[in-house]
Amino acid sequence: MTELTRLRSRHLLGITDLAPDEIELILNTAEAMKEIGTRTIKKVPALRGRTVVNLFFEASTRTRLSFELAEKRLSADTMGITAVGSSVSKGETLADTARTLEAMSPDLIVIRHASSGAPHLLARICKAGIVNAGDGSHEHPTQALLDALTIRERKGRLAGLKVAIIGDLLHSRVLRSNVLLLTRMGAEVRACGPATLILQGLTTLGVHVTTSIDDAVTGADVVMMLRVQHERMHGLFLPSVREYFTLFGLTPKRLERAASDVIVMHPGPMNRGVEIDSAVADGPWSVILDQVANGVAVRMAVLYLLAGEDVT
Amino acid sequence: MTELTRLRSRHLLGITDLAPDEIELILNTAEAMKEIGTRTIKKVPALRGRTVVNLFFEASTRTRLSFELAEKRLSADTMGITAVGSSVSKGETLADTARTLEAMSPDLIVIRHASSGAPHLLARICKAGIVNAGDGSHEHPTQALLDALTIRERKGRLAGLKVAIIGDLLHSRVLRSNVLLLTRMGAEVRACGPATLILQGLTTLGVHVTTSIDDAVTGADVVMMLRVQHERMHGLFLPSVREYFTLFGLTPKRLERAASDVIVMHPGPMNRGVEIDSAVADGPWSVILDQVANGVAVRMAVLYLLAGEDVT
Amino acid sequence: MTELTRLRSRHLLGITDLAPDEIELILNTAEAMKEIGTRTIKKVPALRGRTVVNLFFEASTRTRLSFELAEKRLSADTMGITAVGSSVSKGETLADTARTLEAMSPDLIVIRHASSGAPHLLARICKAGIVNAGDGSHEHPTQALLDALTIRERKGRLAGLKVAIIGDLLHSRVLRSNVLLLTRMGAEVRACGPATLILQGLTTLGVHVTTSIDDAVTGADVVMMLRVQHERMHGLFLPSVREYFTLFGLTPKRLERAASDVIVMHPGPMNRGVEIDSAVADGPWSVILDQVANGVAVRMAVLYLLAGEDVT
Repeated sequence: MTELTRLRSRHLLGITDLAPDEIELILNTAEAMKEIGTRTIKKVPALRGRTVVNLFFEASTRTRLSFELAEKRLSADTMGITAVGSSVSKGETLADTARTLEAMSPDLIVIRHASSGAPHLLARICKAGIVNAGDGSHEHPTQALLDALTIRERKGRLAGLKVAIIGDLLHSRVLRSNVLLLTRMGAEVRACGPATLILQGLTTLGVHVTTSIDDAVTGADVVMMLRVQHERMHGLFLPSVREYFTLFGLTPKRLERAASDVIVMHPGPMNRGVEIDSAVADGPWSVILDQVANGVAVRMAVLYLLAGEDVT
Repeated sequence: MTELTRLRSRHLLGITDLAPDEIELILNTAEAMKEIGTRTIKKVPALRGRTVVNLFFEASTRTRLSFELAEKRLSADTMGITAVGSSVSKGETLADTARTLEAMSPDLIVIRHASSGAPHLLARICKAGIVNAGDGSHEHPTQALLDALTIRERKGRLAGLKVAIIGDLLHSRVLRSNVLLLTRMGAEVRACGPATLILQGLTTLGVHVTTSIDDAVTGADVVMMLRVQHERMHGLFLPSVREYFTLFGLTPKRLERAASDVIVMHPGPMNRGVEIDSAVADGPWSVILDQVANGVAVRMAVLYLLAGEDVT
Repeated sequence: MTELTRLRSRHLLGITDLAPDEIELILNTAEAMKEIGTRTIKKVPALRGRTVVNLFFEASTRTRLSFELAEKRLSADTMGITAVGSSVSKGETLADTARTLEAMSPDLIVIRHASSGAPHLLARICKAGIVNAGDGSHEHPTQALLDALTIRERKGRLAGLKVAIIGDLLHSRVLRSNVLLLTRMGAEVRACGPATLILQGLTTLGVHVTTSIDDAVTGADVVMMLRVQHERMHGLFLPSVREYFTLFGLTPKRLERAASDVIVMHPGPMNRGVEIDSAVADGPWSVILDQVANGVAVRMAVLYLLAGEDVT
């Protein structure tokens, strides 16, 4: 058996398409990439002279910055387009934007878009490798990969772990990508959220769904909080902030039911006092800042595996 | 006779100032630059350590990205200023902005501005080379140059070709720069648009002006569509979208009157179903994506000729 | 006595923290950096592979561009975050933003923020070096340093000079940083502004405070104008533009009272005809564009002293 050294696709559109050995390859490569971030000269020439276009149609600081940092540490030439002030506002279709970008022969396009499937449209049109940085409520694969790297670092494995994911189960691409990755790697996933925000079909993915946070947290090795989207708070979906915190907020008290060495995760930015108590966010359980650091390493790994040459 | 190796001016303010041999020099240099975009390492050190400031006072994705890509492929240090959040909103005059930029000793300033003549103001103030990336309804020289490169690639020449340009003839800087370049290089230009949008003086430039698209297209080797500006659609100048398409939209049917090997061009972003039918935009006549690719090459050529050293 | 070669802090939060020998070190280093800006290849590898994040929560062109240019001339990898479209608008606290950035292991963070003390908060949280690019009405240390470099270039010294600073004395961080630096280096400072805009405590810093511009300018070696903030013009603080110019605007006539070799400074962007007459701004006294050029050099010096290796 020869060892896998490349991904099977030239795109990263979602966890759906990744086999377990590809997930392992990305996580192992990311571990090697982490070391670069600790050097004085945080740079390798792996993507020198390659062009990466960052196409962010939704506002994002953390993910955009993380990708940009990853690209620069690999010596790529990076360029950014945001929806504001772009041709998008001139009514050009996404397909025409994609064709136009493609004509400039970039090597990789990183796209975040409010519509599920936007990266797949680009992948059909472009020769460039496409990386999904979040599409609608569909997938956010690099988030799930950085979460997996963080869990593996702390627990030594993914298989057999009990992972509770808590929040809006209906609209969250972070949930979807994590469920796909974790179940594929043999973890046991419980999902908990308001009854108005439960995704049909989660149980068919092997997820235990509950509306009781205490039920979800009991015995968990990992508790992963989802960000409350304020725009949903004022609608029909969610009760008030106070009520949400009472029913679904993660507090030290609630963590007592979890495994004694439980870790707590959050994709950020956090709403302190809404989905998570500050005592938890800043407490010994929290690996939230490890997630951020691992985000850069995972993105370096993905970009390198899709377009890179030898790392020196 | 020694061959021309540099432009006579250190600025590119408009096609007006370019002699035919300078236009040839830019197009020939752009052909050499195209090859760089096909390499794995899309980069030459021709502008290493040079500073290019991109001053975009009007929203633009395509042109800004194209310039930025050109600058990075030449290894320049690039910096961007957009009107939003800039000193412009603090009421500073353009002349003071120019003097301030100049004091930071950039090598080149690329400017797009809603006022005709803004690049010329900068050229009077700055030691830096100024590149006009579109000024008001005046000129957009790199667009005309990339159009010329695209035509020359397909037709082998510019002289003697019949070129029809269709759309808003009154406000279009793309029209103006193209008319200047094409007539100077010996092409025959016909311009067609709504009677409310015809520029006085076009005929004195040797352009045949008509309000009949069929008249303009007949026998044409090249049909160049101009973008409909939606802000003019709701004013006095233009009829409804449907009526515009009926009178001036380019369809396969209308193309039958053109030369059998006619090519169709559009500066983008396209309004499908307004000035151009999708069957034409995506059809065998279309060289619209070649224009985009050539845009990067032409801008590399211009930047290199104005500020570069040897390309290796 | 060994000569100082590094700053004592790994941050530059304000002039308050700088001893006279540190100010001298920065100015001497900046003089060496100026030479780099005159080369064809305006670049040294002093910060190669270092990551600098520019965190601009307030709109700024001049300061942001100056820092970015300084970073690129030192070969740093630079990244920008502006408040628009950032996590800030998603309600994340500044402390969480700082922790998140820190987790990505940048070497330096340059921050401009409307709240006084924001850079100090970052300095408590981050291992990265923090550079204050203007915090509320508190400090703007690199502005005072570039002003000092400009004065020293023209006058050969700071000690013993008579410096008049004119404008809004209550809200200006430029004033505060300049007063701290100039008095520390032995200059004599006079401050002049509307009675509604005088900062209590200026006199305890050894500043002569007056509401008469003629009084302030008489015998001055340096006249430093502060920018009128238009948002204060329509409030209680300031009279009309016309009245402000009559009372506090700098005209050639008023400059007659100053030393015969007086120089005039302004941090920009200027409001011509409000705080300064065009005849002064463009006249022989003006060193306003020297300030801009020196801004890049001073920022290169600061970044290099905080995070750099040998300059070659």
